[in-house]
Amino acid sequence: MTVGTETTEPEQDVGGGPRVADFTEAELIARITRCLPPAPDWMLVGIGDDAAVVEPERNRVEVLSVDALVDRVHFDRRFTRPAAIGHRALAANLSDLAAMGATPRLALLSLALPLTLGVEEFDSMISGLAGLASRYRVAVAGGNLTRIDGPLVIDITVVGTVKRRQVLTRGGARAGDELYVTGSIGAAAAGVEVLKAGAAAATCIERYQFPEPRLRIGSLLGRNRAATACLDLSDGLSEAVRQLAEASGVGAWIDSDALPIDAEARRWFTGSGRDAAIEAITGGDDYELLFAVRPRTRGRLKAAERRGDVPLTRIGRCTADRTVVLHRDGIDRPMPRGYRHFR
Amino acid sequence: MTVGTETTEPEQDVGGGPRVADFTEAELIARITRCLPPAPDWMLVGIGDDAAVVEPERNRVEVLSVDALVDRVHFDRRFTRPAAIGHRALAANLSDLAAMGATPRLALLSLALPLTLGVEEFDSMISGLAGLASRYRVAVAGGNLTRIDGPLVIDITVVGTVKRRQVLTRGGARAGDELYVTGSIGAAAAGVEVLKAGAAAATCIERYQFPEPRLRIGSLLGRNRAATACLDLSDGLSEAVRQLAEASGVGAWIDSDALPIDAEARRWFTGSGRDAAIEAITGGDDYELLFAVRPRTRGRLKAAERRGDVPLTRIGRCTADRTVVLHRDGIDRPMPRGYRHFR
Repeated sequence: MTVGTETTEPEQDVGGGPRVADFTEAELIARITRCLPPAPDWMLVGIGDDAAVVEPERNRVEVLSVDALVDRVHFDRRFTRPAAIGHRALAANLSDLAAMGATPRLALLSLALPLTLGVEEFDSMISGLAGLASRYRVAVAGGNLTRIDGPLVIDITVVGTVKRRQVLTRGGARAGDELYVTGSIGAAAAGVEVLKAGAAAATCIERYQFPEPRLRIGSLLGRNRAATACLDLSDGLSEAVRQLAEASGVGAWIDSDALPIDAEARRWFTGSGRDAAIEAITGGDDYELLFAVRPRTRGRLKAAERRGDVPLTRIGRCTADRTVVLHRDGIDRPMPRGYRHFR
Repeated sequence: MTVGTETTEPEQDVGGGPRVADFTEAELIARITRCLPPAPDWMLVGIGDDAAVVEPERNRVEVLSVDALVDRVHFDRRFTRPAAIGHRALAANLSDLAAMGATPRLALLSLALPLTLGVEEFDSMISGLAGLASRYRVAVAGGNLTRIDGPLVIDITVVGTVKRRQVLTRGGARAGDELYVTGSIGAAAAGVEVLKAGAAAATCIERYQFPEPRLRIGSLLGRNRAATACLDLSDGLSEAVRQLAEASGVGAWIDSDALPIDAEARRWFTGSGRDAAIEAITGGDDYELLFAVRPRTRGRLKAAERRGDVPLTRIGRCTADRTVVLHRDGIDRPMPRGYRHFR
């Protein structure tokens, strides 16, 4: 129920089309469900009751994660395509499951909508989200819609499953383990700038708007126990290295020259007079995985890489000395700080 | 990562105390975890990794629900105690589990915090939430913190369990089933007005601020199959009746004289020149349960009531005629509409 009805109109919500305020909650829910594939048979009660009911998967443990995307913090409606907003909201969550070695199963979707949001924008956002959900067979089990007198907020909870012995955590690395990163870094951080500037650099923008959660390689690394620790790069590589080191009780040494910096991102940052390595390390949103590997099990890593869908690059190692350093131009320096939400 | 740093100061966020912006994310998470009881043994990975990992409960199906509370929509920081905000956010979710006959197990907590939020207010909110969680042994498995340039948003996902044959849905009622409601109605709707007016009416305010999710009776009604359909009153009795009738493919006839309207709420509404029955029916936030019972299994209902912790009141019945009517002063009229978030 409501306790107040003060609603101001955000400046970007204009145009003559219908807005979410013109629809009932049931109509908006119907616009979501029509984008979704039929519910799987293990979903006993889906959208439309007080809660969803699901049959657990046998011989698996469950992996749960929640992530929120807030307009003007994690994206900007003024220059991000609605389909990309929906895709990214789910991708950020699936990336957390990938980092645990889990396979996604279902999602719950909670949306706080400004009443002035256009329903066409709403539909595109949902279709971006539903497209990614279909691709990874994530069933949308339910959710919540509310209005907000403020920015659009997309909150998604995902549940995945994994065999108990195949769970990847942040905390299993030891000194001497080698550190690897999937794919390339820096593209999303460059992409958001390119978008804002209205420049043409298609790959970066795509990488920012439609990140690919590394579910396949995450699952492979868990299944053959190639990785001793793993997490995703949502807040950037530098924060990920710091968090893996802290959780594992080790330090880390990262070789700047080894970093797989996206070529287009490097050109963008260098072209705008900045240090591409630092920007790529501290920029977030790449949704790649950082993981540690014992040198003696490098064979398993190679096996996972062969069966995987993304290149893996060795970028450094865990150290007994508990500092986190970046090696550049022959000198070890403290790792620069990445993005932080608060102080 | 961030795409913009525009932050305006909401007028209510003043005072000299420290604000959440003065803390790191890790410090804020530590302030949450210190309020929480130790993790249960089925929680294999808790707060602090990319995701939580839990062992499923044997021989149970899982019940999942998400609910968001938004400042100025579902509560108002200007006159709601922070502890009540935290309590209500979790209670709204637990109420959904109660309506399914489920027992809660864990919660995921996603908070969008205005940077100007006082950390004392933050702490009180968390302690209100943690108090209710402890009482029902709900383990907080993880969550997400982000800043927002807008209102406080509390998004909670809960997971509960129930035996497969004991799940209560909205859709099982038949014509002839009798309709019951737990506890009393109208207190929360009156309470929020009393709070706003600064008047003294302690019970109503408590009922609004610290609603009790009806977990015990929900579970009892599911266990002995006394109820054929059940849902909670989060959007008010009139909407609940409508939703139960629609999901079950029946109509409903509600006797206004039978409604268990809270005495203090009745005085408040009557005293302010309004129709207490209509206000109690259309007002939300009571978090009572509405459920249907076959007349021939009334014995089971009595058994559940004896073992339960809340009175049950028969308020009407399901009808073959698919209209939803309120019987008042000898006349059947269409049920008035309750709260709607959108149109």
